[in-house]
Amino acid sequence: MADWQVITGGVTAPKGFRAAGITAGLKPSGLPDLALIVSDVDAIAAGVFTTSHVRAACVDICRQNLKAKPYARAIICNAGQANASTGKQGWADAVESAEILSKELNISPELILQASTGVIGKRIRMEALRSGIPQAVAALSDTGSDAASRSIVTTDLVTKTIALEMKIGDRPVRIGGIAKGSGMIHPNMATMLSFVTCDAAVSPPLWQDMLTRAANKSFNQITVDGDTSTNDSLIALANGQSRTPVITSMTADAERLEAMLTEVCRYLAKSIARDGEGATCLMEIVVTGATTDESARQIAKTVAGSSLTKAAIYGRDPNWGRIAGAAGRAGVPFDQDQLEIRLGDYVLLKDGQPLEFDRVGANAYLVDRSAISILKDPSEFEDCNHPVPGREEPIAAQSVHYPVIISLCVGKGPGSGKAWGCDLSYDYVKINAEYTT
Amino acid sequence: MADWQVITGGVTAPKGFRAAGITAGLKPSGLPDLALIVSDVDAIAAGVFTTSHVRAACVDICRQNLKAKPYARAIICNAGQANASTGKQGWADAVESAEILSKELNISPELILQASTGVIGKRIRMEALRSGIPQAVAALSDTGSDAASRSIVTTDLVTKTIALEMKIGDRPVRIGGIAKGSGMIHPNMATMLSFVTCDAAVSPPLWQDMLTRAANKSFNQITVDGDTSTNDSLIALANGQSRTPVITSMTADAERLEAMLTEVCRYLAKSIARDGEGATCLMEIVVTGATTDESARQIAKTVAGSSLTKAAIYGRDPNWGRIAGAAGRAGVPFDQDQLEIRLGDYVLLKDGQPLEFDRVGANAYLVDRSAISILKDPSEFEDCNHPVPGREEPIAAQSVHYPVIISLCVGKGPGSGKAWGCDLSYDYVKINAEYTT
Repeated sequence: MADWQVITGGVTAPKGFRAAGITAGLKPSGLPDLALIVSDVDAIAAGVFTTSHVRAACVDICRQNLKAKPYARAIICNAGQANASTGKQGWADAVESAEILSKELNISPELILQASTGVIGKRIRMEALRSGIPQAVAALSDTGSDAASRSIVTTDLVTKTIALEMKIGDRPVRIGGIAKGSGMIHPNMATMLSFVTCDAAVSPPLWQDMLTRAANKSFNQITVDGDTSTNDSLIALANGQSRTPVITSMTADAERLEAMLTEVCRYLAKSIARDGEGATCLMEIVVTGATTDESARQIAKTVAGSSLTKAAIYGRDPNWGRIAGAAGRAGVPFDQDQLEIRLGDYVLLKDGQPLEFDRVGANAYLVDRSAISILKDPSEFEDCNHPVPGREEPIAAQSVHYPVIISLCVGKGPGSGKAWGCDLSYDYVKINAEYTT
Repeated sequence: MADWQVITGGVTAPKGFRAAGITAGLKPSGLPDLALIVSDVDAIAAGVFTTSHVRAACVDICRQNLKAKPYARAIICNAGQANASTGKQGWADAVESAEILSKELNISPELILQASTGVIGKRIRMEALRSGIPQAVAALSDTGSDAASRSIVTTDLVTKTIALEMKIGDRPVRIGGIAKGSGMIHPNMATMLSFVTCDAAVSPPLWQDMLTRAANKSFNQITVDGDTSTNDSLIALANGQSRTPVITSMTADAERLEAMLTEVCRYLAKSIARDGEGATCLMEIVVTGATTDESARQIAKTVAGSSLTKAAIYGRDPNWGRIAGAAGRAGVPFDQDQLEIRLGDYVLLKDGQPLEFDRVGANAYLVDRSAISILKDPSEFEDCNHPVPGREEPIAAQSVHYPVIISLCVGKGPGSGKAWGCDLSYDYVKINAEYTT
């Protein structure tokens, strides 16, 4: 059905993009910590940002720039300090970093978008950043996506990268993306960041609409612990370098492009959920029969975020009562006498009535789906996701494609939707409690 | 300020109420599992129930009865099976249990309210219930509150009971309450139940209004894991046996009575939060400076429910970044440059700027507040809360009065509110993952 193919190259797969990732000395660990993504020409820029009322300076600067003019040439991302809850000094630091980069690239600072991730309440280490920016610019290359993807992680177990290609007319159009998030091995570190590049030509409002809809079906449908970050950012650049006709309305090609954009966002979002702190498996919740897609997504996300459901899945327990309970409290009315719940192919509840089911088989399904994810030989990893050096027990990208699937049918309506999460393990508590600031 | 005093007697402290708790054989464990509360005369009845769209039959029956006529004579509560997601058979079982009790008490079945707690998807063991009801009626006594409070628990570590008394004119008026909830040592068991008795005379709509407001400041402000039960019920009976004048509008006495009712609900709600699965301390979140009380309560409840904040408190870590992050995502706009966060008396953030603070002292405060709660000698327990037999490490009622206090000021508005929760420990995961259905 999908008319795209997976290609290599990440955010540098689309034409006219270069990227870099270097060690600037921002992270105490000495791991890579400064990433750049640069378009050769002004790119249409769209963004979706945290809805939190406690926000990092970078988020407000992106919003301000995109509101003034929906174009960008560069994205700079520093990892190590979130620069959130840092007051006026944090704002000044963010402004300064854009100024430094603008001089190095010889572009206006308004064409620079930025993101930060790391400890809340900590300023960026500006001395390291000042000397790092010129090094990062010097390192820019059209194969730099992997280096960039390694430089934006904080506590992720794997990097998250994908690129897809399809044809518009007879010319290839590509979308690439990298993301980080949800590992929290160090205290205070959180944040979901994702950067997407595209070489199609799209009008600015349409590109923003496409990105907003894609985010609603991907990043906004994942949950690890319900704690929205102060820095969450999804930024997408489209630079037109594929030389395909400019898309200005929802034509057939526009729909195909949006579908590919949505798939890039979904893959990255699922990778983040799978890499949630302490997770041993990815959970995919599929809701059908709702009145609207939005209400289906709301039920799906509530189930994905239910601590009781997450703990049951960690216990490999087909405990459908917790799933029913979570669905019921999602704030979406439905007739409980029509509720159906499946775990994989096992039907646990039908027409609101508990069924006898093969408990051994259902347990085996859960064990099997989490076993898939523990492939410790890095050679078994797919090309696009790499274990982060120094992390124990990297997870396999493969598990993103083989989640534990929980399906709910809540009625006879046309609405459907999905959400993704991960199980709740001892390690979640360990990661978030044992390390003190 | 408060013009009431703590008395003994629980739900049988108010005049004209009897209670009983017996072992009917509903629970596989053989512990007490059937409770009755009976008023000598028809009592004004009000209730607040789960908002879940997956509900137990008992909840729908209570709603139906109260809508038809806001009076009741008896409350019956069975523990062991939730009778939720049990379809038509579950409804028939609930109707039958009311019919049996109505014959035993020689009252109309419409005057009987009911509650169930236990495993979702399981019918009540009707054979045990049929023989148990007459035994429970025979056991009714005006000192039966403790027995009743022991018969409604599932996996609670302690029972939750309180009674308060004040004067209206020169006559004593009493409110008593019992509750259960939030321990989840066995799989699938959840539910918050609370039954409140009062011997004041109040008009039905006013009593319901008072109870709704009290619930909004108490039970609706606690969270253990965000998973609303299918069976949550708060039922309050007022039988007028204090022979004080009927209260029909918000007079000064009505306000005093509502304040006492709110205090009963708050004490029981805090007891439940403190007894949350795996909890080692009670957290009290105090929000001031909001635009409205409602928005203050919303921020407080979001912080109380934040997994990252809960895990940090378990780690005894004054990790204010997580508190700020949770406040920011509560859906309530505020100016982050005015945000102030305190832990006990330690000011961690002021005017949106991180402060240097005594980390050793703040850590000691957290250690101290959780140490208070680990009093293993049952003699140290307050009179009103008793350890449940067979449970290890009972918690002290005292800790309800000495929570970890997290205070947030979000601006200069008049709105304030509180919420309560507990920390997130390894045991939460253990309790909810290790036991399989």
